[in-house]
Amino acid sequence: MAEVVKVIGSYSSLFCTRIEWALKLKGVQYEYLEEKDLLNKTPLLLKSNPVHKKVPVLIHNEKAIAESLVILEYIDDRWKENNPLLLPEDPQERAKARFWAKFADDKCVFGAWKACHTEGEEKAKALESAAESFAFLEKEIEGKKFFGGEQIGYLDLALGWIPHWLNVLEELGDMKLVDAQKFPFLNEWAQNFIETPVIKECLPPREKLVKYFTSSLSYMRSLAAKKQ
Amino acid sequence: MAEVVKVIGSYSSLFCTRIEWALKLKGVQYEYLEEKDLLNKTPLLLKSNPVHKKVPVLIHNEKAIAESLVILEYIDDRWKENNPLLLPEDPQERAKARFWAKFADDKCVFGAWKACHTEGEEKAKALESAAESFAFLEKEIEGKKFFGGEQIGYLDLALGWIPHWLNVLEELGDMKLVDAQKFPFLNEWAQNFIETPVIKECLPPREKLVKYFTSSLSYMRSLAAKKQ
Repeated sequence: MAEVVKVIGSYSSLFCTRIEWALKLKGVQYEYLEEKDLLNKTPLLLKSNPVHKKVPVLIHNEKAIAESLVILEYIDDRWKENNPLLLPEDPQERAKARFWAKFADDKCVFGAWKACHTEGEEKAKALESAAESFAFLEKEIEGKKFFGGEQIGYLDLALGWIPHWLNVLEELGDMKLVDAQKFPFLNEWAQNFIETPVIKECLPPREKLVKYFTSSLSYMRSLAAKKQ
Repeated sequence: MAEVVKVIGSYSSLFCTRIEWALKLKGVQYEYLEEKDLLNKTPLLLKSNPVHKKVPVLIHNEKAIAESLVILEYIDDRWKENNPLLLPEDPQERAKARFWAKFADDKCVFGAWKACHTEGEEKAKALESAAESFAFLEKEIEGKKFFGGEQIGYLDLALGWIPHWLNVLEELGDMKLVDAQKFPFLNEWAQNFIETPVIKECLPPREKLVKYFTSSLSYMRSLAAKKQ
C-alpha cells in the first residue's frame, strides 16, 4: 500500500512545525493541511483528534495520531530505518531526551508565554521563573553542538521554537529571556539549529507570527483587564 | 557490573507505585527508599531530581531518572528482554498508549483531585469535566481485558491508580466518578487489574491513603477559605 501521510497544522503553532521538521529530516513525503481558522475547526480535525480538538495531527494511512511529542516518537518508531534516528539508542539518553522535552513543553513554553502576556509584578515573577527553566537547558547543551549530539534529534526538534517563536514573544512582550550573555551555549545551539537548511526551509514567516501573537496578546490583556 | 536499582518514592503518590509495578512485572530487583517527609526532602531526592524535586526517581547504577512515564519507558527500553513488554511493538499502538497515558495524567488525575477538593458549583463543573475524561477511557477499554490486551502493559500501569487511589478520593470527596453503571468496562478492567497478584501485593494500605488525603484536603480547603 502506498504510504499516505498528512499533517494537520497551523503556521502559528510551535507544536506543529516540529512534526514537519521530523518528517523532512526522515525524508518522508507528506501533505500539509493548514487549519486556517482555529476558532472554527474543520470536520477533519474534529474527527481526527476528538479528544483535544487541537493541531497538530498526523494522519498515516487514515489513522490519526495527536500530541506532538507522541507524534515525534511515532515518526521515529515507524520510520526507524530512515536516518537520522531522532531518539538516541541508549536507554539512559532516551530517558534524558524525553525528560527535557516534557520539561520544556510544561515549563519553558508556558513560562515564556506567561512572561509575554503579563505585566508588573506578575511579569517580573514569570520572567524569573522562566529564566530558571531556561538555565537548566543552558547547562544541558554546554559542550554539545546539538542536544542530539552531532546531529539534530528529538529534543532539538522539541526545543526548535526557541530561535524563532521565542524571539517573537520577546519582542512583543518587551523582554529578553534567552540573552546571549547569560545563555551563550543555548544561543549558539539556536544559531546552529536554525541555520540547518531543512529547519530554515520550514519556518513560518516572522511577520505572520508577529501578527498572530499581537492579536493573541490583545485578547489575553483584555481578559486580564476584565478580571480587575 | 552488578545492577543496582533504587526507587525513591512515597506511599501516597500514585505516580510512584506504577514504577514498582513495572519493576516487579519485569522481575527486576530493586531497593525501595521511602521519602518519609515530603515537606522536608532528603538530600538524595534533591540531588537526584534537582529540577522538580519530586518523587518518583529511579536510580539505576547511580544514574537518576525522573518523571514517572519517562521512567516506565526507560524500564521497558532497558530491560527489553524481560517479559512482559510494557509498550506494544506496533508503532501505532505504542502511540495510542502514550497518548492515553498523557491524557490520563493531565486530565483524569487532575480532574479527580479537583472534583474531590472543591465544593458547590465548582465541584459540579469539575465532576462533569472529569466524567467526560473517564468516558474516553471507558470507550478505549471496551472489549479488552487490559489496555495492553491480554496482559498488563504501560497504559494499565499508568491508569493503575483508578481502582485504589480514586476510590479513596471518591469517598473523601463524597462523589462517585467511575460508577459501575455508567462505566461498566472500566470497572471490570479495574477489578481485573487490582486482582492481579503482582499489582495487589504492591498497594499502600487504604487507611494510610485515607489519612494522607484527609490531611491534604483540609489544607486545600483552608486555602480556598482564605481566598474568599
